[in-house]
Amino acid sequence: MMGSALAFPARENGHSVRLTGTHLDDEIISVSKQTGQHPKFSRPFPEGVEYFHFSDLKAALADADMVICGVSSFGVDWFMEAVMPHIPENVPILSVTKGLIAYDDGSLESYPEYWERNTAPRRLSINAVGGACTSYELVAHDQTIVSFCGRDLETLARMRDIMSTDYYHINLSTDVMGVEAAVALKNAYALGVTLAIGLGQKEFGLDSPQHYNSQAALFCQSTKEMGKLLRYIAGSDDELDVGIGDLYVTVFSGRTRLVGTLLGRGFTMEETERELNGVTMESLVIIERIGKAAKRLVADGKLAAADFPLLLHMDRVIAGESSAEIPWDSFVNYKVAV
Amino acid sequence: MMGSALAFPARENGHSVRLTGTHLDDEIISVSKQTGQHPKFSRPFPEGVEYFHFSDLKAALADADMVICGVSSFGVDWFMEAVMPHIPENVPILSVTKGLIAYDDGSLESYPEYWERNTAPRRLSINAVGGACTSYELVAHDQTIVSFCGRDLETLARMRDIMSTDYYHINLSTDVMGVEAAVALKNAYALGVTLAIGLGQKEFGLDSPQHYNSQAALFCQSTKEMGKLLRYIAGSDDELDVGIGDLYVTVFSGRTRLVGTLLGRGFTMEETERELNGVTMESLVIIERIGKAAKRLVADGKLAAADFPLLLHMDRVIAGESSAEIPWDSFVNYKVAV
Repeated sequence: MMGSALAFPARENGHSVRLTGTHLDDEIISVSKQTGQHPKFSRPFPEGVEYFHFSDLKAALADADMVICGVSSFGVDWFMEAVMPHIPENVPILSVTKGLIAYDDGSLESYPEYWERNTAPRRLSINAVGGACTSYELVAHDQTIVSFCGRDLETLARMRDIMSTDYYHINLSTDVMGVEAAVALKNAYALGVTLAIGLGQKEFGLDSPQHYNSQAALFCQSTKEMGKLLRYIAGSDDELDVGIGDLYVTVFSGRTRLVGTLLGRGFTMEETERELNGVTMESLVIIERIGKAAKRLVADGKLAAADFPLLLHMDRVIAGESSAEIPWDSFVNYKVAV
Repeated sequence: MMGSALAFPARENGHSVRLTGTHLDDEIISVSKQTGQHPKFSRPFPEGVEYFHFSDLKAALADADMVICGVSSFGVDWFMEAVMPHIPENVPILSVTKGLIAYDDGSLESYPEYWERNTAPRRLSINAVGGACTSYELVAHDQTIVSFCGRDLETLARMRDIMSTDYYHINLSTDVMGVEAAVALKNAYALGVTLAIGLGQKEFGLDSPQHYNSQAALFCQSTKEMGKLLRYIAGSDDELDVGIGDLYVTVFSGRTRLVGTLLGRGFTMEETERELNGVTMESLVIIERIGKAAKRLVADGKLAAADFPLLLHMDRVIAGESSAEIPWDSFVNYKVAV
């Protein structure tokens, strides 16, 4: 969806756009080619977008200025094995995939780093985009600001020239782990914030007004924990604002909000997953990964459990070890100005 | 409203509560006394709350453990002159008033500091409460976290013992300027975020879905600017999370959202003020004050205008010097990791 949405600014800027499906997307590509519209989008692609099945990958890649990768976190290895070998080193890649990889020792790796390491000795230019952007609102041309991150500012600036429009605005950052961790963490914490919606419905009734005090208390706690995790993982919280903006948009977007609401209402994980009908849930993936890393780092004395009560609570909830009821008093503390 | 809402946790904890109106609130007090309910609340006060007209202030204050001050920023001097002289030095005051005072040299002062300075040589204990809490949701007993701030942690802890319940959770902080600036700034920036709602309605129609990408872009920019202002005003952004949670709840609460939406839709300030029917707008007060301070500090080379494009834009909009159209590209920058 996001890969397809990025066809809009690229094509509107006058570039050739070759929208290419994975091997699972043949029907979406065929329908898009026939109708000029992605089956899940509310408006047609700009005139002139070209459509390629995965079997035509080589033709799609020929002489490309840049490649946008739109796989989910479940497609990361597939993309590396099936597509990256066909991308020349001088063609920059921009990935929309959100997530982090957690290792047993508690260390975390971003996808650009993972791909770079595993495609060495080739030296691909692997960059990523993060920030508050839902695909359907990008398609609608709502004003949007994102961040492109990568090692080389000139490459990032070149991709910005290709992609930026009067509604798609692009920050640049060489703090890859900062941006990638911020936007991965927001997927975890958005589920935490939306637990309050379901908990409120359980307490006050399904039709009760929205419960913004409790959502805001969780938003505040998320800000606090995300900042601390960023300082540990990325060495600074310079990109926290990108994560906060992205958290805001994710709290109001479909599936994460649905899952948080259902869990808050008292659904078990099994019942919740049944409602999802097998759909990918990045939030659950990232909670499990960050939760695992955090528990390891706490056990090793590198992080303090008291600093991450919401993360550890979400980890227990999705593991089926706890109800969604929030441990509010664990969020309360003293701050003494020095 | 907020002062009255705090009667709920206080009374539910078994304390005597003497709800006292200003000289403008005689009717609200009379109605509350007759019906047991504030005319704007959805449920009655807890049994046993007592009601006092302002003329009975002395009786209301007799032997009080603490005094909660619920005036708006327009009542700050009135409270100081009409009420504070009757409060003994050993009775702590907790103020819900949000705001900052701006001086011609660009310096800013919190209300607790202002009151302390102007009631010297008396040594009143003046504390404040900030954080994400709307009065009507507190009345509904939605889970809520706030921060009590003041000079003395023991006094704060005593007030927390009086006020905290299983739905009203209280952080303590001695960083008075940090908390007070964070929650004042959020009133300004909440208006900024909600401009996107009206701008979206103008662009896409009144019935179009909500425009979360653009709201989130403004939320991200608000986070960035609030952090920078806090570091300048309070010396650290330790209380930024409190401001962010409060920003979230304020974006969804009545009047600020209405004003931002109308201005975004293209209403002039005069037309917007007509819709408000003379109701107090803390957001407009604080934008004007912080805007004035920021312009002075920029002129003196103490702040960089490029760091506060949203604040300076809001300042121009409410002064009638600019349409609400957001200067999106002024938010875009480079971040080079070092």
